[in-house]
Amino acid sequence: MSLVLDPTAQDLLFREARTANTFTDEPVTDEQMQAIYDLVKYAPTAFNQQPLRVLLVRSPEARERLLTHMSEGNRPKTAAAPLVAVLAVDNEFHEELPTQYPHFPQAKDVIFGERPVRERSAALNGALQVGYFIIGVRAAGLAAGPMTGFDAEGINKDFFTDGDHSVLAVVNIGRPGENAWRPRHPRLSYDEVVTTV
Amino acid sequence: MSLVLDPTAQDLLFREARTANTFTDEPVTDEQMQAIYDLVKYAPTAFNQQPLRVLLVRSPEARERLLTHMSEGNRPKTAAAPLVAVLAVDNEFHEELPTQYPHFPQAKDVIFGERPVRERSAALNGALQVGYFIIGVRAAGLAAGPMTGFDAEGINKDFFTDGDHSVLAVVNIGRPGENAWRPRHPRLSYDEVVTTV
Repeated sequence: MSLVLDPTAQDLLFREARTANTFTDEPVTDEQMQAIYDLVKYAPTAFNQQPLRVLLVRSPEARERLLTHMSEGNRPKTAAAPLVAVLAVDNEFHEELPTQYPHFPQAKDVIFGERPVRERSAALNGALQVGYFIIGVRAAGLAAGPMTGFDAEGINKDFFTDGDHSVLAVVNIGRPGENAWRPRHPRLSYDEVVTTV
Repeated sequence: MSLVLDPTAQDLLFREARTANTFTDEPVTDEQMQAIYDLVKYAPTAFNQQPLRVLLVRSPEARERLLTHMSEGNRPKTAAAPLVAVLAVDNEFHEELPTQYPHFPQAKDVIFGERPVRERSAALNGALQVGYFIIGVRAAGLAAGPMTGFDAEGINKDFFTDGDHSVLAVVNIGRPGENAWRPRHPRLSYDEVVTTV
């Protein structure tokens, strides 16, 4: 066995975890979300940048507004999920580097002084953080339903008024309901993905 | 306790795992890499796309070539790591969708018919896969040293000759050596990252 992670955890996070399309009514609490964040916040990014921002959509009014930006196929499940999280990046994350990357505080200006550089970096590192977040949801025994089918510009303008945020994903969160998923799709084999040079 | 994942696994993957800058000489085997891939391949992406491609840089000649593209600060550790993996995306991933997303094979053309759409999608979903890969390296009891400081165009041209691949990260892999890391940097608090609307 080449893996150290125990098989129960392998199943919980990867092998048996599935993207859920239906959910039970059981609420997802702020305590659960805090526990998820306080686990995945430690996962690595470049220069310890932490561009990820999470909007927990809890009010019926905000949920209704969000639905108007979702693609039609994603609307029913986004309307029904116990909790919906909007995952975006703050393209002005560099302001935090002097405290978050204290051994090289100049990174704020020397590396990330220009907005296009920050946007590219936030897109990559924010996506890493989205991946970690999905794993964290599963670590809490919950199912995630990540979606990218939405009007990103609409969400950016409607939910972030400063022009500095870019949504990357919207994630439904809860316990899987009836017929929560289709049979698992195939995966590429190791030899199709990995090459030795 | 809001997390279901047991504390040993939490530590292995997140709390005690660290980005390593030095490594022991212990080799990283193909069996370990296969076990890592066969775990993380199950993590979710949009339309089950799997743009990630992994180059395991094992020959001294390829390692030397790679070093010429790395930023100066990343060269010594990339030269010394037992194994270096180049993580890139294949922007022509849509060709695989008829087999990998069989319930909607038309996605290949209807959703991903245009190259700029594919490039944006591969950048996001490939970065998710990079995040999963890093977690997988840790699940094998190994340390990852992910890097983004390199000449991406240089790597793309030198290691992928088809013009279809974009490198996202280079990851050193091995067992942590002496003084493998600095003290952990701070993380943003839950209240700085998560907002309820």
